Amino acid sequence: MAMECPRLVDIEGEVTLAHGEGARATRELLRDVVLPALGEAAPQVLDDAAPVGHGYEGKLLVTTDSYVVSPYRFPGGDIGSLAVHGSLNDLAVCGARPVALTVGLILEEGFPLRELVQVLQSAARAASRWEVRFHAGDTKVVPRGACDRIFVNTTAVGVCPSGVRLGFDRVRPGDAILVSGTIAEHGMAVMAVREGFGFGGDLVSDSGPVYDAVQRLLSRCSGLRFLRDPTRGGVAAVLHEVAQATGFTLTIDEDRVPVREPVRAACELLGLDPLYVACEGRFVAFVAPDQAELAVSVLRGGGCSDAAFIGVVQQWRGAPVLVRTPLGPERVLDEPKGSPLPRIC
Amino acid sequence: MAMECPRLVDIEGEVTLAHGEGARATRELLRDVVLPALGEAAPQVLDDAAPVGHGYEGKLLVTTDSYVVSPYRFPGGDIGSLAVHGSLNDLAVCGARPVALTVGLILEEGFPLRELVQVLQSAARAASRWEVRFHAGDTKVVPRGACDRIFVNTTAVGVCPSGVRLGFDRVRPGDAILVSGTIAEHGMAVMAVREGFGFGGDLVSDSGPVYDAVQRLLSRCSGLRFLRDPTRGGVAAVLHEVAQATGFTLTIDEDRVPVREPVRAACELLGLDPLYVACEGRFVAFVAPDQAELAVSVLRGGGCSDAAFIGVVQQWRGAPVLVRTPLGPERVLDEPKGSPLPRIC
Repeated sequence: MAMECPRLVDIEGEVTLAHGEGARATRELLRDVVLPALGEAAPQVLDDAAPVGHGYEGKLLVTTDSYVVSPYRFPGGDIGSLAVHGSLNDLAVCGARPVALTVGLILEEGFPLRELVQVLQSAARAASRWEVRFHAGDTKVVPRGACDRIFVNTTAVGVCPSGVRLGFDRVRPGDAILVSGTIAEHGMAVMAVREGFGFGGDLVSDSGPVYDAVQRLLSRCSGLRFLRDPTRGGVAAVLHEVAQATGFTLTIDEDRVPVREPVRAACELLGLDPLYVACEGRFVAFVAPDQAELAVSVLRGGGCSDAAFIGVVQQWRGAPVLVRTPLGPERVLDEPKGSPLPRIC
Repeated sequence: MAMECPRLVDIEGEVTLAHGEGARATRELLRDVVLPALGEAAPQVLDDAAPVGHGYEGKLLVTTDSYVVSPYRFPGGDIGSLAVHGSLNDLAVCGARPVALTVGLILEEGFPLRELVQVLQSAARAASRWEVRFHAGDTKVVPRGACDRIFVNTTAVGVCPSGVRLGFDRVRPGDAILVSGTIAEHGMAVMAVREGFGFGGDLVSDSGPVYDAVQRLLSRCSGLRFLRDPTRGGVAAVLHEVAQATGFTLTIDEDRVPVREPVRAACELLGLDPLYVACEGRFVAFVAPDQAELAVSVLRGGGCSDAAFIGVVQQWRGAPVLVRTPLGPERVLDEPKGSPLPRIC
């Protein structure tokens, strides 16, 4: 039936309120812009609800995130790839493999269609790295001034093999704390664009999939306790979350935390501690003491060349998180609570 | 650990950027506002991804919608209840029972916490009517001016018994077209608040669950072909969608379409055809000719007292949708394409 309608949508055009009306213009936006841009990642059924599949073995998991990052394009990614990797990483750190992904767009009237296509193509490329496609989607358009360009929700369903056991409750004093790579790169890449400093292009988001690294760890390290991706609030937020949940003190060696030099310099410029700055392609791992070395070498051997042992879990020592500094006494790492980096994801 | 933190969140306060940072203020917002407001509908696990369950029989379905309705509160509901019923109705019309629901909030800095609580309580009450709770959630806060008060995404996972077969491809010439109740009520209720006319409180949204009515039909009418809830674009959008998908002409008797009097009057005032105006608690059903009467009586006997037979599917007659008017010739019902009612859901 597609040939019967004249092409209303001009790729050089802009998003209009009619595109959000759920009728002809919406269908044409889907047919001429959204589905071609998503390519093989496009939904195979355009219905109110889309089939995911039959009879999965194991536990089903679901996760949702809305993305409002500003600017929506940054070195290393954009709101499309960020939304895909972000939600699927949330599944991955639970040990789950994604089986379905949905995307909900909120667009500001006037948003250029060309940029919408770029965001969708970026989301599709990200999805292909996870071997998953979009099962369902939704597009709303609001008048100029009612939202800032583009917001994206991604929700993902995953399946976790019954044998995987990861959780706060498995963390014990003595456990090693690892990060899977250099930290603070996503946050500083976004801040650099927003604030207009470049550092010669050296600030690039780490936004990407953690699935392979997690699976490699799961298959090699029986002593894996808990994993979490340090997004909003950075590594500090993860450490505080675990400390709150377990009642233990987490002690970090500042010297061991891997931070790339331009990221460190940019943090200093803005007066930020890298421990508070968001990653989007890393995870923090808690591992049994006797497997810390194995876990680091499994990660490094599998592409996470900057993976590092950064600290230990201890019985309560008077503060949730302590940081050992190279030249001074231990300091208390406060829980992030201000708003140093709004709209980072 | 909850007692260790002073209560930062004052229910008389406002949403702040810090509430969206993913750290302490976010956790306190969850603990003091969001989770208490959701009550029994609150997630039972606060993790990156939440378990849905094991080994469902039948087909898994997923659906997603973002809600940007303005104003976010209207007679008969608000953005919270609308988002729950809206996404779950999308599952219901596919014959599916919801097993998981997620909620993603985008809040404007300064949004009153008291109103957030009301929206969440309303969402929780709606979820309880479906006997489902929220499995996962996400809250983002954007600076003043970057969104209009509150946007809500809901994504739902459902299970459909293997025996249910509903689809465009089952629609045949001769099939009867039914609506499950009076139409255009949601759209006109929102417009009435937005435009400041009240009609003595007679304009109330129909936002609500269609699950029971759908299940009743499924269990009694083997000749059910296809169901769809007429939201954006109203009944006209559904008719055009089916006509496009099947290549048949759908002919409606204008006289038979149930419209409450105040809704009809409000439509006339605004120059709108009720067939184009959104419902949020109705569905359009396509039924085998010999079961049309049965289907109407099943619906009427089960609480849908205004359910009605409104038209028939015919071989192609030169236009996708025709309307028989009481006093004149048939007219072509154009596909909705303008933007008469932006931000209706």
